[in-house]
Amino acid sequence: MWGACKVKVHDSLATTSITLRRYLRLGATMAKSKFEYVRDFEADDTCLAHCWVVVRLDGRNFHRFAEKHNFAKPNDSRALQLMTKCAQTVMEELEDIVIAYGQSDEYSFVFKRKTNWFKRRASKFMTHVASQFASSYVFYWRDYFEDQPLLYPPGFDGRVVVYPSNQTLKDYLSWRQADCHINNLYNTVFWALIQQSGLTPVQAQGRLQGTLAADKNEILFSEFNINYNNEPLMYRKGTVLIWQKVDEVITKEIKLPTEMEGKKMAVTRARTKPVPLHCDIIGDAFWKEHPEILDEDS
Amino acid sequence: MWGACKVKVHDSLATTSITLRRYLRLGATMAKSKFEYVRDFEADDTCLAHCWVVVRLDGRNFHRFAEKHNFAKPNDSRALQLMTKCAQTVMEELEDIVIAYGQSDEYSFVFKRKTNWFKRRASKFMTHVASQFASSYVFYWRDYFEDQPLLYPPGFDGRVVVYPSNQTLKDYLSWRQADCHINNLYNTVFWALIQQSGLTPVQAQGRLQGTLAADKNEILFSEFNINYNNEPLMYRKGTVLIWQKVDEVITKEIKLPTEMEGKKMAVTRARTKPVPLHCDIIGDAFWKEHPEILDEDS
Amino acid sequence: MWGACKVKVHDSLATTSITLRRYLRLGATMAKSKFEYVRDFEADDTCLAHCWVVVRLDGRNFHRFAEKHNFAKPNDSRALQLMTKCAQTVMEELEDIVIAYGQSDEYSFVFKRKTNWFKRRASKFMTHVASQFASSYVFYWRDYFEDQPLLYPPGFDGRVVVYPSNQTLKDYLSWRQADCHINNLYNTVFWALIQQSGLTPVQAQGRLQGTLAADKNEILFSEFNINYNNEPLMYRKGTVLIWQKVDEVITKEIKLPTEMEGKKMAVTRARTKPVPLHCDIIGDAFWKEHPEILDEDS
Amino acid sequence: MWGACKVKVHDSLATTSITLRRYLRLGATMAKSKFEYVRDFEADDTCLAHCWVVVRLDGRNFHRFAEKHNFAKPNDSRALQLMTKCAQTVMEELEDIVIAYGQSDEYSFVFKRKTNWFKRRASKFMTHVASQFASSYVFYWRDYFEDQPLLYPPGFDGRVVVYPSNQTLKDYLSWRQADCHINNLYNTVFWALIQQSGLTPVQAQGRLQGTLAADKNEILFSEFNINYNNEPLMYRKGTVLIWQKVDEVITKEIKLPTEMEGKKMAVTRARTKPVPLHCDIIGDAFWKEHPEILDEDS
Repeated sequence: MWGACKVKVHDSLATTSITLRRYLRLGATMAKSKFEYVRDFEADDTCLAHCWVVVRLDGRNFHRFAEKHNFAKPNDSRALQLMTKCAQTVMEELEDIVIAYGQSDEYSFVFKRKTNWFKRRASKFMTHVASQFASSYVFYWRDYFEDQPLLYPPGFDGRVVVYPSNQTLKDYLSWRQADCHINNLYNTVFWALIQQSGLTPVQAQGRLQGTLAADKNEILFSEFNINYNNEPLMYRKGTVLIWQKVDEVITKEIKLPTEMEGKKMAVTRARTKPVPLHCDIIGDAFWKEHPEILDEDS
Repeated sequence: MWGACKVKVHDSLATTSITLRRYLRLGATMAKSKFEYVRDFEADDTCLAHCWVVVRLDGRNFHRFAEKHNFAKPNDSRALQLMTKCAQTVMEELEDIVIAYGQSDEYSFVFKRKTNWFKRRASKFMTHVASQFASSYVFYWRDYFEDQPLLYPPGFDGRVVVYPSNQTLKDYLSWRQADCHINNLYNTVFWALIQQSGLTPVQAQGRLQGTLAADKNEILFSEFNINYNNEPLMYRKGTVLIWQKVDEVITKEIKLPTEMEGKKMAVTRARTKPVPLHCDIIGDAFWKEHPEILDEDS
Repeated sequence: MWGACKVKVHDSLATTSITLRRYLRLGATMAKSKFEYVRDFEADDTCLAHCWVVVRLDGRNFHRFAEKHNFAKPNDSRALQLMTKCAQTVMEELEDIVIAYGQSDEYSFVFKRKTNWFKRRASKFMTHVASQFASSYVFYWRDYFEDQPLLYPPGFDGRVVVYPSNQTLKDYLSWRQADCHINNLYNTVFWALIQQSGLTPVQAQGRLQGTLAADKNEILFSEFNINYNNEPLMYRKGTVLIWQKVDEVITKEIKLPTEMEGKKMAVTRARTKPVPLHCDIIGDAFWKEHPEILDEDS
Repeated sequence: MWGACKVKVHDSLATTSITLRRYLRLGATMAKSKFEYVRDFEADDTCLAHCWVVVRLDGRNFHRFAEKHNFAKPNDSRALQLMTKCAQTVMEELEDIVIAYGQSDEYSFVFKRKTNWFKRRASKFMTHVASQFASSYVFYWRDYFEDQPLLYPPGFDGRVVVYPSNQTLKDYLSWRQADCHINNLYNTVFWALIQQSGLTPVQAQGRLQGTLAADKNEILFSEFNINYNNEPLMYRKGTVLIWQKVDEVITKEIKLPTEMEGKKMAVTRARTKPVPLHCDIIGDAFWKEHPEILDEDS
C-alpha cells in the first residue's frame, strides 16, 4: 500500500441520517473486524534458534528456458554470471546472509546462525530470496544477454533447510559443490561427444553409462585433448559469494580552489561487497582462511 | 541445470593408473554420497489435506518504491494493472489456482482444495508464486509505465495460510476486501485534503483522526463534491481474478483455394483465461453466481 | 510444584556483607535469567483452527502385555472394559472431548472443532490424554482383573491428527471401525482354528491366507457353528463413548421432621456422562440420531 | 491388538451366493480401503536431525494433588523419590535417554543427539514418556506412600524441545536447576514463616515481597537458625539421573556339588542403571567429570 499509512482500526457504523442511508447501501458487511479471526489460521514457521538457515533456489523448467534462450552447452558463462549478479543483489538487499553458493541454475544462501531477521520466519526468508532473485534476473538480463531478448519471465522454486552445527552446514555446501563437480564432468564429456564427435544425445548417454570419473577424464584427454583440470574454475567449482572489503573508485564533484572549479576527482572508498570466488569449499583450507564466516576460531 | 540430465549416482574412485593420479589431486572429497545425509535436515511442510491453500504476497518497502517511481496517489491505475498482469501470469504459469484477489501492493492466490501440486508443499507454493510474480513485475513493467523507467528490481514477501472450509476461505477474502475498502476510503479523503485543500500530511491525519466511515463520506461529499460510491470500482473493490471462457480472435494462415493464396483469416477461438472483475465478494451474490469456484452446490 | 506459588522473577545478587560472602559460595551461576533464552527453542505446535483434533492412543507392546497377563483370546472383555473405563476418565478429566472410539488396545479421542483448550497445542492434547489414560489403567486395573495382579506399568503411544471437515472426521472413525471389523473377524476364525480345531498358529495363518470376509464367515458357520453376526457387539463394533444424560441415584442426608430424623433419602439426579455404545458409526444412522456431536443440522 | 497379527489388506466383496447374502447385511461399508485416505492428514513431526531432544513433563494440577495427599511442605521426600523412581522406569523402558533432571513435580528427559528412536517423531517421544511416567506413578505409589492411599489417577503434561548444541542443552538444564534453587529457597522461608512463626500465607508472601536471595538466607539464619546450605541436597539441587555401572548382588540357585545341593549363592553382577545424583550441573565440573553424556572431549 503506497497511499498512506495502513488504517489499523475499522470504521464503524455511521450515525447521521443522510450519510447513514448512503452507508447502508455499502452494506454493513464492510465491518472488517468480523473477519479478522482468519488471521488465527496462520501457522508459526520460526526456524529453530541458533541454527544456520539455508535457502536454496532452483530454476523452474530451466532445461526449456535454456533451449529457448540459446544457452551455450555445457556451460553458458553469461547465464552463470547473471545468476551470480542476482545472488549479489539478494545479499545486498536482504539482511544477514553470510555466504552464498551457486552452480548451474541453483543458488544457496546462508543466513547467520543468530539472525533475527523477520523473527526467523521460514516463509519470509524464502519468499524474499525467491522474489528478489527473480526480479533481478529480469532486471539485469540485458547486461549479460545483449543480443538475446528475454522471451518470458522465469520462475524459481525455493526451500528452507536448517543446520544445527558448523559441520552440517559445511557438509551441505560440500554436497552442492560435489554435485557441481559430478554434473559438470559428465556434461563436459557428454557435449564433447555430441559437438565434436557428432554423437546423438542417446549415443552419448550410452557411451557414458557406467563410466567412472577417471574414465570420463580419460575420454576427455585421449579423444578431445582436454585436461579437465584446466577447464574454467567457475564451471568446475561453481561460485562462492562472501563479503569482502573492496576498494571502489568513485568519481565525486568536490569543492576545490577556484582554478580547479568544476573538476571531478576520483576517490577510492573501501566498501564491503559480496565477492565471487571459484574455489574449493569442501576441504578445510577455505574455512581456515575465512574463519569469520562461521565465526569459528581460526 | 540445463546441460543434460542430472547425474543421479556419484562417480566412484577410478582404477586405471594414469587417471588415478590425476584423480587423486582432485581429492577423494569429491565423493558426493558422503554428504548426502544433509538432506535429512529438510522438514516436511505439507499443507493439511482437503484444505484451501492461500498464498498472499506483499510488496517489500513499496512505500519507498512508489515514491521513487512517482506513483499517483491515492491510487495509481498503472501500478494496479501491472499487479493484475503479474497475477494473471502466475495463474497461467502455475497449477490449480482457482481465484486470486488483489488490492494495493498485495495479491492473494487460492489453490484448489484438493490440489496435489508439488505434493502440497508450502515452500513450493509460496516460492513459485513469489518468484513468478516478481519476474513478471519487471518483465511487464514497460507495458504499463512507458515513460517511467524501473529503477531497481522490487522484492515481495509471501506466506501460506490454510483454510479448512469454504466459509473460512470466503471470510479470508472478505477480510482483504474490507481492508481495501477501509484503506481506500481513508486514502481518498487523506489525499483530497492534501492535494485539493493544501493540508500537510500531518494536518490531514489529524483531521481524520477518530472519524467514522460516514464522516469521511461526508467530508468527500461536502468539501470535494465527491460521491465515494462513484469512485472507480477497481479502487474501491480491488481486483478479483477468476477463470472465464473468453473468445480470442486469432489470425491464422490457412490453406485456401489458389485465388486466395497467402491470405490470412481471423479465427475466433474460445480459451479459458484469468479475467479481472471489480465486484463485491463479501456478500453471497458473487459466490452464488460462480458456484464452480468453491465447488459449491448452486 | 506444590510448596507455594512459583517465583517468577529471579533473585539477584545480595548486597549486605555477611550474606554476600555466603551467597558467593552459592555462585553467581544461580542467576536464572541468563538461561531463560532456552525457552525460545520451543516450537509452536498449534492445531489448525476450526478443525477436529483427534488424539489416538495405542498400547505399547501389548502383544507381550496380553501374554504376560493371560488375556483371553481373541477378545478379553475385562481388558476392553478397562480400556473404556480409562477413556471415560480421560473424557471426564480433560476438556472438550465430544466422542471417543476404542477397539483392541487403541482409543481415539475427538476434541471439539473450536476447542481452545491449552490454545490448541498438539503436545498438550496428546500428553494429557496419554498420561491420564495410562495412570487410570493402573489405578483401575484391580476393578477389572481381580485375580490377575498387574506385573508392570504399561506404556502407550499417541499422536494428534487434525481433520478439517465433518466428512473427513467421520471417515476417520469409520476407518477405525472397519479396522476393528476386519481384525476381529480374522481373529475369531484364527483362534477358533487353534482353540477348537487344534491347529498351530502357523497352520491357522496358512488356512486363512487369501480368504475373503465371506470365506471366513463360512468357515465359522460350517466348522464351528458360529454365526459371526451373533458375536458380541463390543467385539465386532468396538466401543463408542458419547456424552449422555444419565439418572444417578444418590443417597443424601437431609433435614426432615423430628420423627424421621437421621434418615437418608435416595435422590435421583440427572448428570451428563460418557456412555459406552457398541453400534455402527460407519453408516449415517448414528450421526443422524446424534446431530449434536458434530453440531450438524439434523 | 493382542489377538493375532494385524490384518493389513482389506477383505473384499464375496462372490458365492449364500455368503453373499450374509455379507450384504454386514454392509459394503466395511471396505476399509475406502477410508484409508484419512491417513494423509497426519503431519510429520520429525525432530531436527543431530539435535538434542528434550521431553519435559509437569504434573497437572499438582497443587491440588499435593493437598489431597497430604504432601509435606515445602518438600515431601516421598513424593520426590517416587518421581525419581518413575523417571528411572522411563529411562529403562524407553530408548536412548542419556540424562534426566527432576525437581518438584517436573522431570526432563534428554534423548541422545543422534537417536533414531521412532524416526525421531516428537509425538512418539512425548507420549511414550508421559504414559510410562504416569502409569509408573500409580504402580509404584504404595512403595513410597504406605499409609496414604492414592485417591485418583494423576495427569501430566509434556512437551518436546530441541536443542542444536551442547551449550544450549547445558543451559536448558541449568535453567531448570536455577529454577529449583530459586523456588526452593523461597519455599523454605515461606513455610518456615508459616509453620514456625505462625504467619498466614498472605502475611508470609508480604514479608518476602521484594527480598533478594541474600535476604532470604538471612531470615532463615537469624530467625530460624537454618543455614540454607545445610538443607538436603535433593531439595536444593533436584535430582540428576545418569547411567552408571552398579554392582548388583543377585541371589542365584546354581548347580553345586551334592553336599551343597539346594543352596543359593550370592553373585555380584555389574549392570548399568540410571543412578540419582543431587549435584550441581550448572558449573563445568559435572560435565568434565562425565564427558560421555554429551560425547564431549574430556
